[in-house]
Amino acid sequence: MSKERVLLAHGSGGKLSEELIRRVFVPAFGNPALNRMDDSAVLDGYRMAASSGAPQLIESAILARGPAGARPSVGRLALTTDCHVVKPLFFDGGDIGRLAVCGTVNDLAMVGATPLYLAAGFVLEEGLPMETLERVVASMRAAAEEAGVQIAAGDTKVVEQGKADGLFITTTGVGIVPEGIDLSGSNARPGDVVLLSGPIGDHGIAVLSRREGLEFGVPVASDVAPLNHLVAVLLEASPGLRAMRDPTRGGLATTLNELAAQSRVAIQVEEGRVPVRASVRAACEMLGYDPLYVANEGKLVAIVPPDEAERALAALRGTRYGEGAEMIGSVLPGPPGRVLMRTRIGGTRVVQMLMGEMLPRIC
Amino acid sequence: MSKERVLLAHGSGGKLSEELIRRVFVPAFGNPALNRMDDSAVLDGYRMAASSGAPQLIESAILARGPAGARPSVGRLALTTDCHVVKPLFFDGGDIGRLAVCGTVNDLAMVGATPLYLAAGFVLEEGLPMETLERVVASMRAAAEEAGVQIAAGDTKVVEQGKADGLFITTTGVGIVPEGIDLSGSNARPGDVVLLSGPIGDHGIAVLSRREGLEFGVPVASDVAPLNHLVAVLLEASPGLRAMRDPTRGGLATTLNELAAQSRVAIQVEEGRVPVRASVRAACEMLGYDPLYVANEGKLVAIVPPDEAERALAALRGTRYGEGAEMIGSVLPGPPGRVLMRTRIGGTRVVQMLMGEMLPRIC
Repeated sequence: MSKERVLLAHGSGGKLSEELIRRVFVPAFGNPALNRMDDSAVLDGYRMAASSGAPQLIESAILARGPAGARPSVGRLALTTDCHVVKPLFFDGGDIGRLAVCGTVNDLAMVGATPLYLAAGFVLEEGLPMETLERVVASMRAAAEEAGVQIAAGDTKVVEQGKADGLFITTTGVGIVPEGIDLSGSNARPGDVVLLSGPIGDHGIAVLSRREGLEFGVPVASDVAPLNHLVAVLLEASPGLRAMRDPTRGGLATTLNELAAQSRVAIQVEEGRVPVRASVRAACEMLGYDPLYVANEGKLVAIVPPDEAERALAALRGTRYGEGAEMIGSVLPGPPGRVLMRTRIGGTRVVQMLMGEMLPRIC
Repeated sequence: MSKERVLLAHGSGGKLSEELIRRVFVPAFGNPALNRMDDSAVLDGYRMAASSGAPQLIESAILARGPAGARPSVGRLALTTDCHVVKPLFFDGGDIGRLAVCGTVNDLAMVGATPLYLAAGFVLEEGLPMETLERVVASMRAAAEEAGVQIAAGDTKVVEQGKADGLFITTTGVGIVPEGIDLSGSNARPGDVVLLSGPIGDHGIAVLSRREGLEFGVPVASDVAPLNHLVAVLLEASPGLRAMRDPTRGGLATTLNELAAQSRVAIQVEEGRVPVRASVRAACEMLGYDPLYVANEGKLVAIVPPDEAERALAALRGTRYGEGAEMIGSVLPGPPGRVLMRTRIGGTRVVQMLMGEMLPRIC
């Protein structure tokens, strides 16, 4: 144990990431918010309430780039942080800047929080072209405007050439969880329906093909997008919504395993209902990947009560980033923590969490 | 301009850092909070209020490791973020973990905020001994307990060997600024008194001597410490307190220049009153450094109205981390933005901001 070293797989988002958290971080930092292991910590110590008066008016003029009226007036504080080390920095459909904003906005949205403020920390490698930094920052600005959040704090450090890889961005998000919303990966119940907001694997394949210089028949663009507006629509359509999660590192398979484990239920998914673009499927076959484990950056899984499923699905399909939504499965009483796949040919197989590392530095 | 590249000096905390912020970040992200360029953003959109009821009780059992009763019940949200890339990871008096917690706690404290929650993002280099990570995390926990803050959210990414340097930590802090407190580097007025909480240069010299394997006659330990309890005492003693800032990267000289520029005043400092340990002075002479530019991680500069100066000084001296506090100078009407030093032999010289990079990766 004293000779153990950090492996790439510890950053995979899969089994070894979970072990690292449970073994190193939870024992040291353990507290109710962190222990829940949701995408954001929802903190009970303070309530937030929209202020009135002049400063609020000035600030909300900036904040109001998102849909009007979407900002709750009272709620709890949500906090989340994400490091971004994607390689390469630019890829079809996005770049590290858009990723850094959307990843954090989405982690807030997954607990039902309305994202308010971001903080961004940059570690730059000496020699990075200034123009690269400017492009990334412009992309962050555009994504922040789309999401309707304000980048309110930042820091920059520079390390010697060869001591980083271009740039890394850590984005932290603060949001407000409106009164009455209490979502958690531990809320799924037998009978619930599992929704997926669109086809999987786009982000991972887009990044990988750019990194390796691969050409597929049809180019694949990353799905990286802020999901907070879609989530607002979903919350409206499904007041009984149990949980949401975005299947990033580790892919859909890992996310479903996390949800099943947290809620101590089984989740059964119909293979034929999980949307995968033909181009992504072809790329995965060529590379020997299973799309279930490939990262997404603009998709979510939602678990809803059965009587709200149709309405929730229709609502998702009515949004810009949810057009391809599908009902992909359901929650069973057990075996707890198990994810099962009913295959196209009628069999059933167990879907594991991601073991090892498949695609390092995908986000 | 299109061929310009990022230099180590862009991370110095001095002139080039300021230019990078003004040229790249402010135009893109510019908003009232960021534009103030204080150590933390203080956000006017929402008020925070301590909640009552069971969840609060559970959480405050964890939070209450700091001094009892120090947590304000109502206030504005403060947000700050800091990347930590110090090299080496361990040095006399501290390590990157203690630095990551204290740096962020102190940035909150400098705007008068009571630190509440931290988020920590780790970028790990493949091959890092797990034991190193465990030591760093244990140190973060101890520092968080000392400061009375909760580490509520986290993330870990791993990059290939040779693509980072051991580990980087980005810490983001959320705090509450009590009603009635409005501190900013732009508040200094002619006649105000400048206080410094203790001797300067300890952190920079401690890190440098460990990095370079230098031995000085007397070993120098970093001053890295959480200043929030000291700040609470100071706020109590000086209700008219104008501004505080911790002289980290760029040292005391850069901090005074920032304060003079933000407030459009001059600051005059008495060389003989600026405390520097003999060991630090000796090390600086050997290395050709001016202690005024060497980083501190457990010191603050406070600007107070003249009639509160004596009381504020006495209060500082009564705290654990303020024993060596001194009155080092005063605020003059102009020339605006100018920092002047009255030397021991009776002359006056201009003290510039840090130009270029003196000690890369000092925090």
